[in-house]
Amino acid sequence: MTPAESYYPTEPSVPTVLTETVPGQFTLKAMSQLGEVFDVRPSYFVADFEKSIGNYIVDVDGNTYLDLYAQIASIALGYNNPALIEVAKSPEMIRALVDRPALGNFPSKDLESMLKQILKFAPKGQDHVWSGLSGADANELAFKAAFMYYKNKQRQGKDFTKEENESVMNNLPPGSPDLAVLSFKRAFHGRLFASGSATCSKPIHKLDLPAFRWPHAEFPSYKYPLGDKANAEFNQREDDRCLKNVEELIKTWPIPVAALLIEPIQSEGGDNHASKYFLQGLRDLTLKYNVVYIIDEVQTGVGSTGKFWCHEYADITPPVDLVTFSKKFQSAGYFFHDPAFIPSAPYRQFNTWCGEPARMLIAGAIGEEIVKNDLLSQCSRVGAYMFKKLEGLQKEHPTLFHNLRGKDRGTFIAWDLPSSEQRDLLLKTLRANGCNVGGCSTNAVRLRPSLTFEEKHCDIFINVLAKSIAQVLV
Amino acid sequence: MTPAESYYPTEPSVPTVLTETVPGQFTLKAMSQLGEVFDVRPSYFVADFEKSIGNYIVDVDGNTYLDLYAQIASIALGYNNPALIEVAKSPEMIRALVDRPALGNFPSKDLESMLKQILKFAPKGQDHVWSGLSGADANELAFKAAFMYYKNKQRQGKDFTKEENESVMNNLPPGSPDLAVLSFKRAFHGRLFASGSATCSKPIHKLDLPAFRWPHAEFPSYKYPLGDKANAEFNQREDDRCLKNVEELIKTWPIPVAALLIEPIQSEGGDNHASKYFLQGLRDLTLKYNVVYIIDEVQTGVGSTGKFWCHEYADITPPVDLVTFSKKFQSAGYFFHDPAFIPSAPYRQFNTWCGEPARMLIAGAIGEEIVKNDLLSQCSRVGAYMFKKLEGLQKEHPTLFHNLRGKDRGTFIAWDLPSSEQRDLLLKTLRANGCNVGGCSTNAVRLRPSLTFEEKHCDIFINVLAKSIAQVLV
Repeated sequence: MTPAESYYPTEPSVPTVLTETVPGQFTLKAMSQLGEVFDVRPSYFVADFEKSIGNYIVDVDGNTYLDLYAQIASIALGYNNPALIEVAKSPEMIRALVDRPALGNFPSKDLESMLKQILKFAPKGQDHVWSGLSGADANELAFKAAFMYYKNKQRQGKDFTKEENESVMNNLPPGSPDLAVLSFKRAFHGRLFASGSATCSKPIHKLDLPAFRWPHAEFPSYKYPLGDKANAEFNQREDDRCLKNVEELIKTWPIPVAALLIEPIQSEGGDNHASKYFLQGLRDLTLKYNVVYIIDEVQTGVGSTGKFWCHEYADITPPVDLVTFSKKFQSAGYFFHDPAFIPSAPYRQFNTWCGEPARMLIAGAIGEEIVKNDLLSQCSRVGAYMFKKLEGLQKEHPTLFHNLRGKDRGTFIAWDLPSSEQRDLLLKTLRANGCNVGGCSTNAVRLRPSLTFEEKHCDIFINVLAKSIAQVLV
Repeated sequence: MTPAESYYPTEPSVPTVLTETVPGQFTLKAMSQLGEVFDVRPSYFVADFEKSIGNYIVDVDGNTYLDLYAQIASIALGYNNPALIEVAKSPEMIRALVDRPALGNFPSKDLESMLKQILKFAPKGQDHVWSGLSGADANELAFKAAFMYYKNKQRQGKDFTKEENESVMNNLPPGSPDLAVLSFKRAFHGRLFASGSATCSKPIHKLDLPAFRWPHAEFPSYKYPLGDKANAEFNQREDDRCLKNVEELIKTWPIPVAALLIEPIQSEGGDNHASKYFLQGLRDLTLKYNVVYIIDEVQTGVGSTGKFWCHEYADITPPVDLVTFSKKFQSAGYFFHDPAFIPSAPYRQFNTWCGEPARMLIAGAIGEEIVKNDLLSQCSRVGAYMFKKLEGLQKEHPTLFHNLRGKDRGTFIAWDLPSSEQRDLLLKTLRANGCNVGGCSTNAVRLRPSLTFEEKHCDIFINVLAKSIAQVLV
């Protein structure tokens, strides 16, 4: 039995769209009622999670979609996973829900095992973890760790000066220093004010919000497929050009660059891959200039590239300083190795809750199931199968499949359509035909199924995709 | 039967400290093991939430403390509340935990009722809610709403210019405008970068972190008790002085002030009350200068002042623009009234999860229980009883009880000791004698019991307090 069969014996064998149009009339009614108290403008449909199962999501009209979007890449093991339901019913979970601790002051006796369970899945070279609440929160907590580390190193572990203690209360240097996080064009790292300053995806994510004057470096725009010999020279030139730009910015930016933040694959920004050579080049530069190196694995982490953490493909040496996560781990936070990233005094990295124990329990169980069912191998195998099928479609419709990418990166696959109108039309048609798929950037289709997605699901998707293309794009 | 009796038939009748010192040896061992993966420097003890019940928290040595700190003011109804346990076991909760939706794109059919349930408890004049994950997050989401509203009003609803769309990608104005949130000295609004810029409690919360150059106005330092005729003239002069300072800052600060943020009682900053006159004066100023008025009810909200929301005492007219909450509601977010605070386009106030449905369910149930058991009246009654007892102790030890405050504000009571050393010693001794109590500012004791705290619990606390004072402070 495959993992999907054993988790989901009643999973549908095909998607079913019952309504003439999507969204159907019950969804429209539910959206109108929900609209009284919630912003439904971005809503595709109103989901019935009670009826959703495995790789299929059901809406309130009873339409059953094969889901390749998985709550914006956040569902690791499919809907209503029985192993997670067990955890949700456990006494530990009930305690975590009804007696939410202020973990910093009153850690629960359950905390040690929860954290050690999450640390089992830490990337190579990381052996501590600090917990937050969302991807943006994880990144901002990592920024705090990076800034404190950077300044502490500068003052060689000495105590704060009187001037620092006074100026900080007025938001002025030296207590509130001018320091920058360098990120990349097209990056997405969250939507709070510091994470938002590092984000550079679309204007609408940032307009009207004050920002720190932080720099955005050039991110490589490769020729795909990445491994192809024909593209090697071009791509290396592109890497070198961008590395040079990073070094230039570190050397010349008017605010000292304390940290560098990068996604191994820019996900919201268009599934733009970073090569092993590029990620290692950044390690060399960050060491040369004493910059803290942070990898954002919020969307790429927890298995969907075929490794638990995508940046493991690059085998960066020595390992990066901080790795942030969220989404598929439900729980958020950052991993680190060097104890110097533990702040010099208590209450510097602190808040009421210091994380969410209910979500830590879920994260631990997700990691456990991935290992137990060897879902990384499955994801690699299924991804390769999918990629091949997409290459087939690409041959049939070369103008509709630009930059097909994600080869050997599990099911983390994307391609570009010629225009955003065609991309949007394709996504809409896919949904009407029973497949829920997301986009990224302006004209890319991104595949983000859960780790229980198998070859049989691929076959269904490829058929629906071929049909949808035939209906509206050729 | 009282609410505590009916919720907690097996609640202990007295605290019990079994170990010679606190923390005891099992706690020390647990802390040392936990210390391998967690920052235990701020930890008082390791809690056993399985054994904790009602107003009593138990540590891993079996010490049973009467809890007047309640997870930094975050436990609304006591430990292991049976009504919340029911919710934790409900099918809705299990779905929320295992199928965490991306609510913005794929709202669940449960979302409408969850939000409407929370809105039942919205403060007067507020009829919409937007959901976040923590108090800091709630404040930053409110800042986003305020900045977008402010700029949209300035451009009179017109579309973004080309210049705005381009400059925002470089974190530069006009797309990333220079706008400020005005907050107050001694304020605490969270520890992320924008909320941290509004926070002005202690240097250690902010040192080494870049900050926005936002202003901190004078917050009134009253003579207590507040209602006393003898203090009326002094206190009004103090209000006028601070209102003048706020107006001056709004008029002269080099960055335009788009929003004003205030706690009705500064909680981390020392339980500094804001009078009705002051809060109304701020409404008048914010209207005069087109500043968005935000009330931070993260610590004061959800009942412990004897009203559901503390600022309701001030009956601010017209109502403030945004009210943020978290802690006792477990769920976080902001309330608002004016539909103009719904951003002009989708995806401006947006993120993967758009809140935490598991915590929304808990929040709704907490509100329901508060109303059903009339816990606001109980809290007012118990608070008055406690205050009277503390006035008695104050008469005995006038030098150890300065600025006793919180009269007619439920159990939200505090007083100052002459020094931080004496305050810390008192808190430590209270714990050794079976009462878990927190401090705030440098030398205040703050009482933050749950809403199920009754007269009998007061009597125990007052006895332990008298004994502790006799042991170490006289």
